[in-house]
Amino acid sequence: MLEFRKRINVSTDLFVVKNLIGSILQGVGLAYLFPVLLVWFYPDQIEYVPYFAIPGMACVLFGAWLSRHSSKVEDVNLRQAMIAAAFTWLFASFVSVVPFMKIANMSFVDSYFESMSAWTGTGLTMMSHLSSYPKILLFWRAWMQWLGGIGIVLVALSILIRPGVAAARLYRAEARSERILPNLVNTSKVIFEIYLALTLVGAYLYYINGMNPFDALTHAMTGLGTGGMSTHDQSIGFFHSPAINAVTIFLMIMGAVNFTVHYKLFKSKSLKPFFEDIQVRYMFIFLIPAIAIIAYSLYQVGDPVGQALQGAIFHAVSAISCTGFQITSLSNYPEVAKFIIAILMVIGGGAGSTAGGIKLIRVTLMYESLKWTIESAILPRGAVIKRKVGNYVFSEEDIQEVMSFTMTYLAFLLFGTVYTMLRVKASLANALFEVASAQGNVGLSVGITSPHMPVDLKILYILLMWIGRLEIFSTLVFIISIAFLLPRVARK
Amino acid sequence: MLEFRKRINVSTDLFVVKNLIGSILQGVGLAYLFPVLLVWFYPDQIEYVPYFAIPGMACVLFGAWLSRHSSKVEDVNLRQAMIAAAFTWLFASFVSVVPFMKIANMSFVDSYFESMSAWTGTGLTMMSHLSSYPKILLFWRAWMQWLGGIGIVLVALSILIRPGVAAARLYRAEARSERILPNLVNTSKVIFEIYLALTLVGAYLYYINGMNPFDALTHAMTGLGTGGMSTHDQSIGFFHSPAINAVTIFLMIMGAVNFTVHYKLFKSKSLKPFFEDIQVRYMFIFLIPAIAIIAYSLYQVGDPVGQALQGAIFHAVSAISCTGFQITSLSNYPEVAKFIIAILMVIGGGAGSTAGGIKLIRVTLMYESLKWTIESAILPRGAVIKRKVGNYVFSEEDIQEVMSFTMTYLAFLLFGTVYTMLRVKASLANALFEVASAQGNVGLSVGITSPHMPVDLKILYILLMWIGRLEIFSTLVFIISIAFLLPRVARK
Ligand SMILES: [K+]
Ligand SMILES: [K+]
Repeated sequence: MLEFRKRINVSTDLFVVKNLIGSILQGVGLAYLFPVLLVWFYPDQIEYVPYFAIPGMACVLFGAWLSRHSSKVEDVNLRQAMIAAAFTWLFASFVSVVPFMKIANMSFVDSYFESMSAWTGTGLTMMSHLSSYPKILLFWRAWMQWLGGIGIVLVALSILIRPGVAAARLYRAEARSERILPNLVNTSKVIFEIYLALTLVGAYLYYINGMNPFDALTHAMTGLGTGGMSTHDQSIGFFHSPAINAVTIFLMIMGAVNFTVHYKLFKSKSLKPFFEDIQVRYMFIFLIPAIAIIAYSLYQVGDPVGQALQGAIFHAVSAISCTGFQITSLSNYPEVAKFIIAILMVIGGGAGSTAGGIKLIRVTLMYESLKWTIESAILPRGAVIKRKVGNYVFSEEDIQEVMSFTMTYLAFLLFGTVYTMLRVKASLANALFEVASAQGNVGLSVGITSPHMPVDLKILYILLMWIGRLEIFSTLVFIISIAFLLPRVARK
Repeated sequence: MLEFRKRINVSTDLFVVKNLIGSILQGVGLAYLFPVLLVWFYPDQIEYVPYFAIPGMACVLFGAWLSRHSSKVEDVNLRQAMIAAAFTWLFASFVSVVPFMKIANMSFVDSYFESMSAWTGTGLTMMSHLSSYPKILLFWRAWMQWLGGIGIVLVALSILIRPGVAAARLYRAEARSERILPNLVNTSKVIFEIYLALTLVGAYLYYINGMNPFDALTHAMTGLGTGGMSTHDQSIGFFHSPAINAVTIFLMIMGAVNFTVHYKLFKSKSLKPFFEDIQVRYMFIFLIPAIAIIAYSLYQVGDPVGQALQGAIFHAVSAISCTGFQITSLSNYPEVAKFIIAILMVIGGGAGSTAGGIKLIRVTLMYESLKWTIESAILPRGAVIKRKVGNYVFSEEDIQEVMSFTMTYLAFLLFGTVYTMLRVKASLANALFEVASAQGNVGLSVGITSPHMPVDLKILYILLMWIGRLEIFSTLVFIISIAFLLPRVARK
C-alpha cells in the first residue's frame, strides 16, 4: 500500500479528473436532453420538460468548459481507467437525481438510490404506484438503464476484462493491451448498433404481442439492458401474457450474453458462435437444475405443474441474467426457491454482457478447477495437469484471480446479509436474496427494499450496487486512491 | 483421471488393504474391550459386557489373522495413506455399531449414524432421553469421540497437512516428507500424553465444580476431543453452572488448538507459543465480532444482557471449536444468531487439532490474500507483492490449494443445505445450520437431526460427517480409487 503512494502524481491525476468530470457531465447532459423528445408523442408531458432541459443544458455547458483542454490527454493507463469507471457511475448517478427530487418529490437519498439503481442496471426501486408517475419520468429510468447497460458492456470489454484477468483469455481480441482508447473506439460502434437493433426487435415483438408503444419500448430497453425497471408495479406480471413472458426471456438471455458473441453472430451470420460460447453453455447447465428445484418447491406448496414451471423458468432466467423482471410476487415463494434464485443472482450472466454477479466465466473456471484440484491430489506430485476449458489453457494465476474475486464478492454478500438481518430483522433467506439482488445488479425483491427501509440500509445498498456493477476491484482502487490523494491535495 | 488408472497396482493395493483392515479391526477390538473396565465401578453394567467383549475379542483375533504378514509392509505413499485414513473412519464406524443395535435396539442406519458421529467427533445423535441409557453405552460414545479426536490429530499432522499444502508451511517440522510412518511415531507419543493429561485436568476441574465422576470424565473426554456428546439431553445446560461452562470453554479452546502448539508449550514451559500461534490469534479475531452480533441479536429478542452474552460466548466457542456442547436450545435462536454460528462452524478450529470445518489457517490465508489481490490490482503489473503471514511466505500455489478446498467445502455445504430444505421443508437458516454442523463435525443442532428424519437424509449426513472429518480430498481419492479398483478386482 505504501509503495502505491509513490505512484500517484497529483497534478496529472487532478488534470485527468477534471477532464473526466467534464466528459461525464457532457454525457449525462445529453442523456438529460433526450427524454424531452417524448413530448412529440405525449404533449401533456410538456410541464416536466424544464426538469430535464435545465439540468441537461447546465451539464453540457459546464462539462464543455471543464474539459476545454481535453486534447492534451493522450492516453490513460489501466489504473486511471479503473478509477474513472468507478467514478463515472458514482457521479453520473449523483447528477441524475433532479427529476426524481423535483417531479416525484423524493428525498435526496431515495433519488440517489433510484438513480444508482437505474445507471447500474439494478432495478430495485424507491417508487411505488409506478403508473401514477408521469411517462417522462418512467422513460428517464428506462433510458438510464439502457445507457448504463451498453456502458457497462464497453467498460467490461475494455477495462474490467483486463489483461492478466482470466476472462480476458476468452476474449483476447477485445482486451489485448493496456492502451484502451483506440481499441474501445474500434469495436464500440458495431456493438452499439447491435444493441440498438436488438432493442428495436424487442420493442416490435412486445408491440405485436399487445403492449402499447410506450411499454413496448421501455421494457425492451430495460429487458435487453438487463435493468429490469418496469412501468408497472407488477412488472411483467402486469401483462398476464405467456407470449410477452417469452419475449422477455429472449431479451434477458440476449442481454446476458457476452456482446462479442453478438458481434461474431453478426459477422458470421450463423448461430454457431452462440452455442459454442462457453458462458452460454454454462448458463444453461446452471439453469436446468435450478429450474427443476424451484419448480419442484413451488409444486410442493401447491402450485399446479404448469404454473410452477412457468414461474421457475421466468424467474431463474431473470435471476441469472440479472434482469430482475418478475411475473409474480416472490415474497411468498418457499425459502428453498428464494435460496436457489439467490444463488443464480450470485452466479450472474456472461462477462462482457449487461448482466451482473460473479459472472459465468468465473464460476465455470472454479467448477473446472475443482476437477483439476482433485486430479492433482490423486496424481503424484510433479504430474502435469492441463488446465483447459474449451480451447483455452488457464494458468494458476488466472484461477487465483477468479477465486480472490469470488471470495471478495462473497465477503461483501455476507456482510450485507448480516447487516440487513440485524437492521430489519429479516430472515436469512430474505436478507440474502435482497443483498444478492442489489450486489448482483438484479433487482428482484422480496420486499425489503422500500422507501420505508432505514436510511443506512439504503446507503449500504447504493454502495453494493455500485461495487457489484464495477466488479469490486475498480471501486476499491477508487476508494484507496481517494484516501491517498485527498491529503495531498489538501497539502497543496 | 485416465492417467491415474495406470498408477494402481492391484496386487500391492489389495495386500495393503488386507493389512489395513487387520489393523483397524485390532484397534477397534481393543477399543471395544476398554469400556468393560467400567464394571469395576458400576457392577450393574455387567449385563451389557457381552456386547463389548464378544465383538472386541472377535475383532482382535480376526484382525491379527488378517495382518499376520504385516512386517512386509515397509512404507506407504501419500495416496495410500489418504485412502487408508478415509477407509479407517468408514470401517471403524461400521464395526462399532454392535452396542447401539443390541443394547439400544437402534436400526442399522441409526447405529451407523451414531457410530460415525462419535468417531468423527461430530456429536449429532439419533438417541434421546440419554440418561435412560446404560452408563456403559454412554461411555462407549465418549470413548469413541476421545479416540477419534486424538486419531484425527495424528492423521492431520501426518497426512492432511501434507507437503505442498499451505498449512504445512506453518508446521514444517511435522510434515516434512512423504514418508509418514517414522515421523508419526516420533511425535505421536508426546502428543498422546499431552492429550491424556489435559483430559485428566478437565475431568478434575469438572469434578471439583460439582459433576459426578462419570459425567466429569465423559465430558472432559468429549470436550477436549471437541466431540460434544453429552450424557444429558440438555448437554452442558443440564448443570446450570457458570463454573462448568467456563471449564468447558477452556477445554473446547484447548481441543481446537493445533497440537504442535501444545507440544511447544510443554517443551518451552511458557504460554508464549499459544499467543504467538497465528491460528489462535485469528480464532479470537473471528470470535469477537461473532459474539457481539449473537449477543446483540439475543438482546434484541428480549434476553437480559448477561444471559445474552453468556449464551453468545459459549455457543460461539462451541461452534468455532467444532465441539457442539449447548447450554440452551438453539432452535429458538434468532436467524441472524443461527447464521453467525453456522459461519463459525464453517470456519472451524485450528489445522492439526481435533476440530473440524475449513480450519482457521485456511480462512486466515484467504483473508490475507484478499489484501494481496487488492494490492496487485492497484500496483502496476510486474510489481512484486510479498505474500507473508507472520514469518511465513506463501506461494500462489498454496493460496490456490486453500481456495479450491474452500470452494469444494462450500459446494458440499450448498448441496446438503438445498437437499435438507427440499426433504424436510426446513428454513434456509435451519438447514444451513444443521448441514454446517454435520460437515464441520460440530454437533450443534436446531432439531433437524432426529431418529424421525428421512433415511436418505441420515445417509447424507453420515457422508458429510465422513467427508468433513477427512478434509474432503482423502475421501474423494478413496471413492475414485474404489471406482477404478473394483472393476480390476472383478476381472482377476
Ligand atoms: K437488473
Ligand atoms: K463436535
